Amino acid sequence: MKTSIATVSISGELPEKLEAIARAGFDGVEIFENDFLAFDGSPADVGRMVRDHGLEITLFQPFRDFEGMPETLRSRTFDRAERKFDIMQELGTDLVLVCSNVSPVSLGGVDRAAADFHELGERAARHGLRVGYEALAWGRHINDHRDAWEIVRRADHPNIGLILDSFHTLSRKIDINSIRSIPKDKIFIVQLADAPLIDMDLLYWSRHFRNMPGEGDLPVSTFTAAIAETGYDGYFSLEIFNDQFRGGQARSIAADGHRSLIYLGDQVHRGPNAKSLTVPPMPARAKVQGIGFVEFSADEKDAADLVGILETLGFRKVAAHRTKKVGLYAQGDIRLIVNTEEKGFANASFAVHGTSAYAMALVVDDAKQALARAVALGAERFEQPVADGEVQIPAIRGVGGGLIYLIDDGSDLGRFSEIDFVPIPVEETDVASTHLMHVDHIAQTVAYDEMLTWLLFYTSIFETRKTPMVDIIDPSGVVRSQVVESADGALRITLNGAENRRTLAGHFIAEKFGSGVQHLAFHTNDIFATSEGLQKNGFKPLVISPNYYGDVEARFGLDPDLTEQLKAHNILYDRDDHGEYFQLYSTTYGEGFFFEIVERRGYKGYGAPNAIFRIAALKKALRPEGMPKVES
Amino acid sequence: MKTSIATVSISGELPEKLEAIARAGFDGVEIFENDFLAFDGSPADVGRMVRDHGLEITLFQPFRDFEGMPETLRSRTFDRAERKFDIMQELGTDLVLVCSNVSPVSLGGVDRAAADFHELGERAARHGLRVGYEALAWGRHINDHRDAWEIVRRADHPNIGLILDSFHTLSRKIDINSIRSIPKDKIFIVQLADAPLIDMDLLYWSRHFRNMPGEGDLPVSTFTAAIAETGYDGYFSLEIFNDQFRGGQARSIAADGHRSLIYLGDQVHRGPNAKSLTVPPMPARAKVQGIGFVEFSADEKDAADLVGILETLGFRKVAAHRTKKVGLYAQGDIRLIVNTEEKGFANASFAVHGTSAYAMALVVDDAKQALARAVALGAERFEQPVADGEVQIPAIRGVGGGLIYLIDDGSDLGRFSEIDFVPIPVEETDVASTHLMHVDHIAQTVAYDEMLTWLLFYTSIFETRKTPMVDIIDPSGVVRSQVVESADGALRITLNGAENRRTLAGHFIAEKFGSGVQHLAFHTNDIFATSEGLQKNGFKPLVISPNYYGDVEARFGLDPDLTEQLKAHNILYDRDDHGEYFQLYSTTYGEGFFFEIVERRGYKGYGAPNAIFRIAALKKALRPEGMPKVES
Repeated sequence: MKTSIATVSISGELPEKLEAIARAGFDGVEIFENDFLAFDGSPADVGRMVRDHGLEITLFQPFRDFEGMPETLRSRTFDRAERKFDIMQELGTDLVLVCSNVSPVSLGGVDRAAADFHELGERAARHGLRVGYEALAWGRHINDHRDAWEIVRRADHPNIGLILDSFHTLSRKIDINSIRSIPKDKIFIVQLADAPLIDMDLLYWSRHFRNMPGEGDLPVSTFTAAIAETGYDGYFSLEIFNDQFRGGQARSIAADGHRSLIYLGDQVHRGPNAKSLTVPPMPARAKVQGIGFVEFSADEKDAADLVGILETLGFRKVAAHRTKKVGLYAQGDIRLIVNTEEKGFANASFAVHGTSAYAMALVVDDAKQALARAVALGAERFEQPVADGEVQIPAIRGVGGGLIYLIDDGSDLGRFSEIDFVPIPVEETDVASTHLMHVDHIAQTVAYDEMLTWLLFYTSIFETRKTPMVDIIDPSGVVRSQVVESADGALRITLNGAENRRTLAGHFIAEKFGSGVQHLAFHTNDIFATSEGLQKNGFKPLVISPNYYGDVEARFGLDPDLTEQLKAHNILYDRDDHGEYFQLYSTTYGEGFFFEIVERRGYKGYGAPNAIFRIAALKKALRPEGMPKVES
Repeated sequence: MKTSIATVSISGELPEKLEAIARAGFDGVEIFENDFLAFDGSPADVGRMVRDHGLEITLFQPFRDFEGMPETLRSRTFDRAERKFDIMQELGTDLVLVCSNVSPVSLGGVDRAAADFHELGERAARHGLRVGYEALAWGRHINDHRDAWEIVRRADHPNIGLILDSFHTLSRKIDINSIRSIPKDKIFIVQLADAPLIDMDLLYWSRHFRNMPGEGDLPVSTFTAAIAETGYDGYFSLEIFNDQFRGGQARSIAADGHRSLIYLGDQVHRGPNAKSLTVPPMPARAKVQGIGFVEFSADEKDAADLVGILETLGFRKVAAHRTKKVGLYAQGDIRLIVNTEEKGFANASFAVHGTSAYAMALVVDDAKQALARAVALGAERFEQPVADGEVQIPAIRGVGGGLIYLIDDGSDLGRFSEIDFVPIPVEETDVASTHLMHVDHIAQTVAYDEMLTWLLFYTSIFETRKTPMVDIIDPSGVVRSQVVESADGALRITLNGAENRRTLAGHFIAEKFGSGVQHLAFHTNDIFATSEGLQKNGFKPLVISPNYYGDVEARFGLDPDLTEQLKAHNILYDRDDHGEYFQLYSTTYGEGFFFEIVERRGYKGYGAPNAIFRIAALKKALRPEGMPKVES
């Protein structure tokens, strides 16, 4: 699969764009005309710069308002084309994109358009160039690739072909099957873009909301599979208009784009009829069995506070590292590691971010395979020296530069504990049992413009799906929330994207100097028994506004006794078609980290309707020490 | 006109919201239920807090999914309503909003709904309360205020009335005339919101894009006039869902809201049939005759640089202030003042923002009237001590805290010059004439979340209109541009809203510590003669990429000789249905300020298609001294 991206897709000036595109691993680049026009080198300079980066120019684009023009505009349009042909020859590319005419003066008629393209083909041939025709979804007369193909067919010229674009086809819900009958040699290039499903004006949607394949909701992989079935083996090129990407970091946007194409190729390759698409071989998405452990980095002082909270949560220290200042705390299937080493990565992370849950271990069927897939998808591998005889656990860099360890189901985790850790005999204590069973979900707070990056990261590497985006109303702004989860719930990660630092989420990012885990949710089978255990241990629950309970009782028609119980325990309640949900929160720790305890009685969601009340309570608890009330 | 706003419209927690709402001058407030639920005081506490701010609770909202429910849900719905009634009595409000049912299980039928409302009316009456019914634009069975009114009519209960909302009516383009036949006593409250015209899913549009009346494109004043004609004299209440407002500063959003209502009332009051609406008396919008002067604040050193540039632009010093270090430079009808006083407001502005065009004078028919209108619309009046005998020019605070002086057509400006300034005899110099005639437009760069504020400010005070928003593509992100202009072009202000600091506009705001004038455009009748004069004076034009000219020639079918001339002079070209446009830029000065010279040959726009090339050239010129290439 040959990968390409249009320069318009990323931010920066032309040299920065090319550098980022090359570094991300693309084979080719579409030169968006304005990027060339605004650059003060000659076309030959641009061509050289592209080739110096090891890239091919896959397309020069766009050439607008060509077909069906009445005279005298028609002549001028051909003159314009000749100018572009000259530039293309200097640039060193043989393909130009003509998008369907949107001019109100343009004339319809398939044969008229075909005749124009035949003449353009003749002219292009004289320069040794080719012209690809693309139906814009909002083209005046042509807005369907089937009609564009009919024009190309009737133009009947070897230098005239079709350009397919997933957005233009899928946004209009055009039958994908119609692609399968197009000869592969008449498809000159394929452009790809995804988009979130929001019903709006097609042009506005296209200009502002496009995103990378897999980041949106369109069936881009089905579209790509149909193209692969034609035998097409040319470039797949990203053409993404997105306000956020235009303001983002060129390198990370380009890296996301490359990952999206590799993942897309892999998806198509695993489909039933698309063996023709060559993609780098890689293992299938890793099935996550559960959370092996979550590791905190801290200094001695913070660690004492943290361990104090863990004890109120009913955790006990069960093992100590043989050589390092690292303790293992456990309860049910939950393992938490507190690392206070004064060197190594945990310490470096502590120096930058303060005390934080900087690493998590995911239990997978085969850690080596999972690592291989992650690396094939451009994830950064992490290794640090370990002492003789200690276990080197495969790891990759995740959100905020934190670590994701990959451990084999059953085996590695056991070995890791036995080899590196010395068990501590469990003593009789007066710590009450709190019945926590496993990690229900891990909540990561990220800068809003990283949300798509991490959604793509998780869904491409691990066997997960993403839920629709939900707006969480913080008193100081909107926080976007989207969940990555495996079908069986073994891995559930909520991603909360903060746009402004006055929100609870934004405050966390600002204080912590980066994205990261903001809370851990543990599951219990009996939230009230857990709450009683917590109370005995001196746990401080987050106090919820009493007004909440009157409403929840009325909304769900709860038994008043249950409401009284919920209120007495500061437990939030929700219900969906599958069952009930109970949520109990801690207050915040450090820069805004907190714990949650949930009981799911069949419920599938994450309590989004309760978020506004939880956030208001957390912000209230943060003040006056932490949170500025109004920031100017 | 009684003014109200829903708490959901602004950011912050309930106490902050109420403080901001009261300070902005509203008479009442709608309590959005979640704001109450998240607050940890009792309903009585909230009621007291509202009344302590001198506000009335105009509405408790929303009560959802009420009418047409099948049993047993119907009984529970009535139970829910009883709970809300209890809360309302504690809060101290008598009106609740029921929005039309969106539940998939709800049943249709006007009579069924009417019966439900009749019963609800009976229950409400027992508590001494009233219920208003509002048709949501996306209601399952009822999504048109005409149908909601039919239900209210058939419910036939004094405690059941209608709630009208401009967004729900106007977004569906429902005939406004249908409002004129509703009896005023059955309209329990009116909610108002505007929105930009973008064709999209109504719910998504409503949740994210609403804005204050006058900030969007909906005919809210026509809607309001129709209501006023019924004789309705109750509250007009803003209910605005907007992501930007949710993250904004509560005080400024509330102030914008109040201004929007006062302006709306004034518009309706000036209409043909709406004398019943009482609004504060104020003069009509001020007609601007032209730009009297633009004033720069600078220190001695920067002023020398600035004056040097002004001289290359062909300006000469024509007068000096009698008592202050203030010089007047002129050419054609353009007057520029350079203020290097070491005290006073100019100096204070310099201390914060550096050298900048911190003040402008608008020539109006009657400055006192213009000032009175501005103050009635909540603008902040500015006064500073002047020496005996000197002129106190009426002034208000504008963008970035800068000043807008208001001077009478012909008179005040003359007096101001005679009294405060001593003319300098014009000497023979070797400064070549550059033929600059008047200020064409003033370009203000503002933080994106201030754009709507300043659009409303200018359009409500001055006789101007706003143009549709245009996206300007900066290499590092999208900048939104919108123009405020008078019909005759005497006042033209472009507002550029920057979201990120890596754009040229965002960089300017960051370096200058705030919004302000980023460039001044002067008009000439002969751009080439001007360019020659500038060259003789040693003016340094902004160098435009040669690639631009090949494209512009082809795009507009220009005579190659003209293209050569444009290129030789670094002049940009555009054309619209009205004529041609020529643009010549300076390089940047200080933190990114620059000058533009334009020639309009009938052209009405601002050269938006050229902005990308101008920005690329300016950013290139800024580097390496000023602009960071990539910022992490």
